[in-house]
Amino acid sequence: MEFEHLFPIWDKLTVSEQKLLNQYALRRTAVKGTLLHSGSDDCLGLFIIHTGQLRAFILSQEGKEVTIYRLFEGDICLFSASCTMQSIQFDISIEAEKDTELWIIPPDVYKKLMDSSIAVANYTNQIMASRFSEVMWLIEQIMWKSFDKRLAGFLLEESVLEESELLKITHERIAAHMGTAREVVTRMLRYFQSEGMVVLSRGTVQIKNRKKLQMLSEQ
Amino acid sequence: MEFEHLFPIWDKLTVSEQKLLNQYALRRTAVKGTLLHSGSDDCLGLFIIHTGQLRAFILSQEGKEVTIYRLFEGDICLFSASCTMQSIQFDISIEAEKDTELWIIPPDVYKKLMDSSIAVANYTNQIMASRFSEVMWLIEQIMWKSFDKRLAGFLLEESVLEESELLKITHERIAAHMGTAREVVTRMLRYFQSEGMVVLSRGTVQIKNRKKLQMLSEQ
Repeated sequence: MEFEHLFPIWDKLTVSEQKLLNQYALRRTAVKGTLLHSGSDDCLGLFIIHTGQLRAFILSQEGKEVTIYRLFEGDICLFSASCTMQSIQFDISIEAEKDTELWIIPPDVYKKLMDSSIAVANYTNQIMASRFSEVMWLIEQIMWKSFDKRLAGFLLEESVLEESELLKITHERIAAHMGTAREVVTRMLRYFQSEGMVVLSRGTVQIKNRKKLQMLSEQ
Repeated sequence: MEFEHLFPIWDKLTVSEQKLLNQYALRRTAVKGTLLHSGSDDCLGLFIIHTGQLRAFILSQEGKEVTIYRLFEGDICLFSASCTMQSIQFDISIEAEKDTELWIIPPDVYKKLMDSSIAVANYTNQIMASRFSEVMWLIEQIMWKSFDKRLAGFLLEESVLEESELLKITHERIAAHMGTAREVVTRMLRYFQSEGMVVLSRGTVQIKNRKKLQMLSEQ
């Protein structure tokens, strides 16, 4: 697939802007687990995901993680080009959660486009507003949803992403996604197991009663 | 003070864009406590704060609040014009926390400017990135900072905003700012009092040991 089919506002660019992108956009492959961006010192550029899955997360000083959002095919990651916008004052990390093919637009090229094209500037606005919406959703979850409901929702979401009822994920990883301690996850998963919603074994969580999980998560 | 001195990129607008703003920007006064914007159905327009103080907060279905950020003189509130950006998919409420004078740019006028001016489009980006940074800071606080440290930080911030050691605020209001229950606030304030950091009386919290509060909040 060509770059131009992935860039949503390609048709709104001038020919010279299109040439600039064709000349400088880089294709890259990142195997699962690759850390593509880490904090505000990194500024590799804008990522456009071709195939695969990226995870954006924040990291505490003590090394605790919370997943902020995920990016899928066709999604654009703005914060890996945070140096193009001076008002971005937070550190985010981006890792490949699956083997991922992506395009990278170098920050100086993107900055040039933002300064010359109203379409690009307003599209950048739309991307940021989408991420903002995801982050606001997360705050609501953290503030107002009890952990059992959040965990039920997380397991269901994972199952959709993996297209499987058998999730190969450790309690440690779930804790990192949700920003809590492993023990808290283990305790709740055991409760879910006792209620017949999941079956646990080493390194896996198998969903047994999807409907019950769904009802819990939607309460 | 004229509108043009408050609008930070006035000089980057064309004469006709300036005329448009001069013609349609509205001046409004909101007394303390006025709810200026409530959820995504409202779309009054962009607020530019002349004097006073606004508070942006989210509201749970059960009526619980959390303060997301505050806006002061010269600040711009974008989300009161959320209908200008289709990707904004969350509900925020805005209230006057002090008597406030503000300018309002109607949403259709602002939309027109975003579509015609690269300066406005990119400035909108900067505003959103600033708010995004504040929200990310809030997530880090909620996830990783214990309640005693957050409360100490909140009292110190209030004291700066009110320019006083004597805060006229109820435990109920503090709870609404921080997204917790009144009892939790009361318990912690009593602990602060027993440690000599504050003195409590009906409807007020008096800061007695600023240094100790500061040390706690920075831990």
